[in-house]
Amino acid sequence: MRFTSEQRLDDGVLERAFTLGDIPGTLWTPGSAPAPLVLMAHNNGLPMAEPRLVARARYTAARGYAVATIDAAGCGDRPRSAADEQARAGLRRAMRAGEPVDEILESLVGPLVENAVPEWRTTLDALLELPETGGGPVGYSGGWTALGIRLAVVEPRIAAVSFFAGGYVPRAQREEARQVTVPLLFLLQWDDEGNPRQRALDLFDAFGSKEKTLHANVGGHTGTPWFELEDGCRFLDRHLK
Amino acid sequence: MRFTSEQRLDDGVLERAFTLGDIPGTLWTPGSAPAPLVLMAHNNGLPMAEPRLVARARYTAARGYAVATIDAAGCGDRPRSAADEQARAGLRRAMRAGEPVDEILESLVGPLVENAVPEWRTTLDALLELPETGGGPVGYSGGWTALGIRLAVVEPRIAAVSFFAGGYVPRAQREEARQVTVPLLFLLQWDDEGNPRQRALDLFDAFGSKEKTLHANVGGHTGTPWFELEDGCRFLDRHLK
Repeated sequence: MRFTSEQRLDDGVLERAFTLGDIPGTLWTPGSAPAPLVLMAHNNGLPMAEPRLVARARYTAARGYAVATIDAAGCGDRPRSAADEQARAGLRRAMRAGEPVDEILESLVGPLVENAVPEWRTTLDALLELPETGGGPVGYSGGWTALGIRLAVVEPRIAAVSFFAGGYVPRAQREEARQVTVPLLFLLQWDDEGNPRQRALDLFDAFGSKEKTLHANVGGHTGTPWFELEDGCRFLDRHLK
Repeated sequence: MRFTSEQRLDDGVLERAFTLGDIPGTLWTPGSAPAPLVLMAHNNGLPMAEPRLVARARYTAARGYAVATIDAAGCGDRPRSAADEQARAGLRRAMRAGEPVDEILESLVGPLVENAVPEWRTTLDALLELPETGGGPVGYSGGWTALGIRLAVVEPRIAAVSFFAGGYVPRAQREEARQVTVPLLFLLQWDDEGNPRQRALDLFDAFGSKEKTLHANVGGHTGTPWFELEDGCRFLDRHLK
């Protein structure tokens, strides 16, 4: 892991870009170390520089966490496969035409998750060797619900997960949801135009966790109220601190 | 309003019994006054001395609120009408026989709400004259969702409402739910044996509030996790302080 740039933010958080082989990433650490590690991914390959992810990461770091994100294979500015390009073009076409997008999302997000998981695990190995993280425990918090499900199933080091939205999750992860048994916070927007409500509720129902909490707020996909940021950190506090 | 007994609790909260005409009640106030008033009612006429209500009231008072509850007409130890006794006997019989209870609950809870509302409003008038409450603002927080809906609709002094469960709410209040427009926190247990999940979700959907938040936790009716107490106070903090 090689740090390529750094800046100290107003609230004392240190934001550093890093590379790990081909993987570009960002690590935010609070003033006091070590701090529990939180992996934070953005939905379906949106770039790690996306402002809402960066805002959430900085807030969470200021609350005493080491927060990391990466652009995994096929995500952000990294090269995309021909199949991936084709699926994305098909998705745009179908959405313009008002046609169903389920099968396209399946063919797009399914492989994206499969390819992302090994890179997130490699990153996790490297991050847990840093003195800043103190070796664990680890939380997952993010908009990419399908990736979080897969990581929680294969990665015993993940002790708590917090998901957002989750109306569109590939079949494979919908089926593995019952294998997720760590404490879980599931956040959704009641009128999310891109994530069918009933499907998100069914997913919440499917998780195997004995401690699982649903938070839903009225409004569309980007309308999550600010206090959910704080609630998310309080959930992590209960399980990682 | 006449105070009939008082005790100072370990956390500095003053717990006082009062009577207001025929209405018996309890007021919990924190060390520092004045404090925003929270009306807290227990579901469908359960007595105000019920331990879970008392625990929630004491916790909320310690967090800086004046909390009040009463046994309204037909509730707790107060005399019950013949119709009420008959409905309760019918409810027990139907539940033992595993028969549907909707119509019985309708005939039991409907009049209970109608009779309780004027007594709660009389109590509110008296409470807001006390220096301990500073005249407002007022929140409603409680397990008796139907009463809270009715009060929120008729009582402009109520600025925020927090409800629990709410699977069984009389038709009249299900219909008025869309007239509730103040900020709302709706708490439910995902596997509540006494409150059908879909009906509670439909009720949440119906409220007219622009700011409404749903919290759901896995488990049965009495399994609400402790952190929801804190979340409930943080909701009140956002709107009453």
